[in-house]
Amino acid sequence: MSTRNLKLTLAYDGTRYHGFQDQGREEIPTIQRALERAWERLTGECVRCTGAGRTDAGVHARGQVANFRTRDGRIPTARVPYALNSVLPDDIRIQGCVEAPESFHARFDALAKVYIYRVENGPFPSPLERLYSYFVPYPLDLERMRQAASLFTGRHDFRGFAGSLPEEKNTVRTMIRSEVKREGAIISFVLEADGFLYHMVRTIVGTLLEVGRGKREPESIAEILKAGDRRLAGPTAPGRGLILETVRYDEAATSRAR
Amino acid sequence: MSTRNLKLTLAYDGTRYHGFQDQGREEIPTIQRALERAWERLTGECVRCTGAGRTDAGVHARGQVANFRTRDGRIPTARVPYALNSVLPDDIRIQGCVEAPESFHARFDALAKVYIYRVENGPFPSPLERLYSYFVPYPLDLERMRQAASLFTGRHDFRGFAGSLPEEKNTVRTMIRSEVKREGAIISFVLEADGFLYHMVRTIVGTLLEVGRGKREPESIAEILKAGDRRLAGPTAPGRGLILETVRYDEAATSRAR
Repeated sequence: MSTRNLKLTLAYDGTRYHGFQDQGREEIPTIQRALERAWERLTGECVRCTGAGRTDAGVHARGQVANFRTRDGRIPTARVPYALNSVLPDDIRIQGCVEAPESFHARFDALAKVYIYRVENGPFPSPLERLYSYFVPYPLDLERMRQAASLFTGRHDFRGFAGSLPEEKNTVRTMIRSEVKREGAIISFVLEADGFLYHMVRTIVGTLLEVGRGKREPESIAEILKAGDRRLAGPTAPGRGLILETVRYDEAATSRAR
Repeated sequence: MSTRNLKLTLAYDGTRYHGFQDQGREEIPTIQRALERAWERLTGECVRCTGAGRTDAGVHARGQVANFRTRDGRIPTARVPYALNSVLPDDIRIQGCVEAPESFHARFDALAKVYIYRVENGPFPSPLERLYSYFVPYPLDLERMRQAASLFTGRHDFRGFAGSLPEEKNTVRTMIRSEVKREGAIISFVLEADGFLYHMVRTIVGTLLEVGRGKREPESIAEILKAGDRRLAGPTAPGRGLILETVRYDEAATSRAR
């Protein structure tokens, strides 16, 4: 029986999940578990699903990528999104499915990821934004935050902006884009890198908010990068403001002849 | 003891409420009841709160206006938003409070209201939009919908676009603005009128979507307005796509000397 390696693109509202990756406990809902259960319900087959980004609890996705290997021969690849969506809860939606080469791995093969962190800035929080942003009531200086954000671009050791990690882990990453935009009350931090460490986006944003509030200087970013000391950085901003926007791959590596 | 007539501006996520107006039943959650309970919890005083728009079940607001009369003398008007927000659930947020003239009535004094109806149009629904939009998978012709939408502007009898109403009710309203915009996957219908009938926005949108889909001609709008027959119009679009955006008043009528 032939096997297909299916590459899924999916979006989810992470509010009620403990992140993408399954934690091996029935009572802890994760995106991975929801996907695997949905597939089992459709086909009876138990699969193991790998996500490109191990989003934390409460973190959302508009363009997460996952893959799994299946021996099922009944659901055509193009119908997989419709089939899965018919059994998934409505806070997870498959947006696309293609057959990838046998060796394709959603996480190891990712060349870059784009995360967006949304901050709502104004006198009162909007209930329509509360699930998908972090509300900040104090004034924020956009220019200062932009200046500080630009210091992240390029190749750096990001240890100072990561949560607890093993000593020996390679913490050098390349930041391709680091932008701050404002649209009405919403300030968006857009970060693109070849990889992200645990809590990296949320720590970067927590630190940039301190810059915007005037609690630290933009130049302190360079110092934290140099020192590699997490204690010098700002607090970790909450998960609900974070969205995994896109995962980029080398097209040749992910698409088979269709 | 002196009485203040407080004018509140508020926003809410209507997902778990049966509309603004209280239905006199403990087990049916409404925005009005939540506000009245919050005030009672703060002051011990039972008040009666009137909303400018009696939004339906599931309908949201970014700029609803409400008023109530209080004999409380402890909470200064400018502190009312903070006080109420400290006891309200996080899906309701007071954005402002001013003292209005004794005679001010949030509904009767409203000169115009702006509603926005959000449709998500694409191959798959986005989980992050599911609570605040109506997902439509089939292609929609924006130009046709714009042409049809423009026919609503001006003074018309809107009986054909209203839910069940008493025969004798005056159903003539003036539509000030009727626009259709697209931003990415989101199509927004913006309607401003001096008043709206029961289910009016949702029926207008349900009918415009039939125009956009090619199931009816833009000119049919004029025919429904003329005939005043609800059976000629399209279906009522679901509440979750609807947002009460702004309520307009004559400034002189609503603000007292501060």
